[in-house]
Amino acid sequence: MTNRMNRQWRLAARPAGLFKESDFKWTEEPVSELKDGEVLVHNLYLSLDPTNRGWANAVDTYLPAVKIGDVMRGGTIGVVEESRNEKFKQGQHVSGLLGWQEYAISSGAGLSKLPDNSAIPLTAYMGLFGHIGATAYFGLLDICDPKPGETLVVSAAAGAVGSLVGQIGKIRGCRVVGIAGSPEKCRWLTDELGFDAAINYKTENVLEALKRHCPKGIDIYFENVGGAILEAVLNLINFRARISLCGLISQYNAAQPQPGPSNLVMILVKSARMEGFIVMNYASRFDEAFAALGRWYAEGKLKYRVDVVEGLDQAPRAVNKLFDGSHHGKLVVKI
Amino acid sequence: MTNRMNRQWRLAARPAGLFKESDFKWTEEPVSELKDGEVLVHNLYLSLDPTNRGWANAVDTYLPAVKIGDVMRGGTIGVVEESRNEKFKQGQHVSGLLGWQEYAISSGAGLSKLPDNSAIPLTAYMGLFGHIGATAYFGLLDICDPKPGETLVVSAAAGAVGSLVGQIGKIRGCRVVGIAGSPEKCRWLTDELGFDAAINYKTENVLEALKRHCPKGIDIYFENVGGAILEAVLNLINFRARISLCGLISQYNAAQPQPGPSNLVMILVKSARMEGFIVMNYASRFDEAFAALGRWYAEGKLKYRVDVVEGLDQAPRAVNKLFDGSHHGKLVVKI
Repeated sequence: MTNRMNRQWRLAARPAGLFKESDFKWTEEPVSELKDGEVLVHNLYLSLDPTNRGWANAVDTYLPAVKIGDVMRGGTIGVVEESRNEKFKQGQHVSGLLGWQEYAISSGAGLSKLPDNSAIPLTAYMGLFGHIGATAYFGLLDICDPKPGETLVVSAAAGAVGSLVGQIGKIRGCRVVGIAGSPEKCRWLTDELGFDAAINYKTENVLEALKRHCPKGIDIYFENVGGAILEAVLNLINFRARISLCGLISQYNAAQPQPGPSNLVMILVKSARMEGFIVMNYASRFDEAFAALGRWYAEGKLKYRVDVVEGLDQAPRAVNKLFDGSHHGKLVVKI
Repeated sequence: MTNRMNRQWRLAARPAGLFKESDFKWTEEPVSELKDGEVLVHNLYLSLDPTNRGWANAVDTYLPAVKIGDVMRGGTIGVVEESRNEKFKQGQHVSGLLGWQEYAISSGAGLSKLPDNSAIPLTAYMGLFGHIGATAYFGLLDICDPKPGETLVVSAAAGAVGSLVGQIGKIRGCRVVGIAGSPEKCRWLTDELGFDAAINYKTENVLEALKRHCPKGIDIYFENVGGAILEAVLNLINFRARISLCGLISQYNAAQPQPGPSNLVMILVKSARMEGFIVMNYASRFDEAFAALGRWYAEGKLKYRVDVVEGLDQAPRAVNKLFDGSHHGKLVVKI
């Protein structure tokens, strides 16, 4: 166990705008000896998520801000290399917030065992199950309660969460319109995932396109983006519309606070509801989500894709793919 | 019945900004003969409400836009002068959307009978019962479900709805902080109505004052105003905060759309909820609200005040008191 070196990305500076590599510091240090109750995890995959950007700010959000000098927070999947905790055995695959590093020592708190099922690739626990699948599942079904025939609009629709949300909406019988950032992504949504329509926000007038694709108005909006797209959607919401506020990725790198939509009055006159959520609120019900997602996947009703970047050293550059949209599906680093 | 002249304010132009008298046209015309099923109501009081401004725009909201040339829409209380509808008897007091005019002929649809109780002044049906009381009751209790010990913030707190909302919040055991526009109004809130604190937004830094008066953060916000006050409140909301979107009076007269709050991300990270509503959604449950409000009033737990302007001819000028805050309590025109 000793003599093993750990390699890590630590937060070196508060980012301004997009992450820069100089916001991180690469460190190497020996892995400590385990104490009673501890588990040594060898991280295999690191999840990169838009929320990482918020964690790096000085302000606490739903989790405390990452401190300067600390290993950058991140979700990982790994394998137990050594255990002095009876709940975890050597060789067990686990997931947790174990950080941007090769090895992590955990007390076991917040560490989840992955099912022992060799038919499921490890990356599925990042792209379909895990926090991504639970976010899509509860953020759509619990917050918005979609009904057959309703119109659902999803932004960042080709992203890890958005692509699942749209497919779950189809399973629930909704008309589903996705908003994404390239012709290739739009084609994937309509041709592969069964969305009814897709809008390329980089080349189309989103409001006009929404009017065309949502002739009965918008009943449900799954919001990953914020900004001008939120404003366009609000103009078309129906009575008792529900807006699930999952992400506001257009805001995360802004140097100055960006003004919100000028038409919040639509929420008033339409008796609509906008609700924010954090997937951790649903931790006690994750099994319900994973059971449903697994069943739909087995039935061929759900597809997902994972964009794997090779090498932990690439993480500070790779994370920005989330913000320029150059990734395809769930963004993951193979450590 | 014939030979009776009706005097009316008709909408003459779409207002830009505040109402101008030239946006209305004074007309006089004979009252028509009643047809079978119709009721002739002599209007006694006209309710002036911020939502009147929205009705005068060209865009339909939760009700169709008032057409140019039509009698301006408005809630009234009146007395039945003649009836060819068996549900309404001569001398019965009624309320309805009978418009800015002395007389109205109604089919009976949307016309409500007031209780036959001479102990209750007619203006109570505008300031305490009626749409004002129902708005406060359902907008707070149904949308926000306040719990004892929670902190409730109310904007336009000295207004007709806001002042009731704060008092209902106290009845429910909340800490209540009101935001209003003059020292006199603030004193009324704390000294007469029992609010725990009041903030004068014209002279105080609202964010700093909220921090001082809401040491445990904000659990519930009853929103009548929008704009900078909404932004300040969002900065201090707690986990699972509820925001009842009742009015956005700061926006109604804006020539250009005003940007919304730049910190909607607070709704996300705090798993909060913002919900709009229209009191008409609750029409079938008004009796529940009026019973509770009447009981609380009889117990001395609720106070209200009515600002009576004399004369229908004053309505176009009086309505702007809602927007400059120079009224005190429910604004009513005695016809």
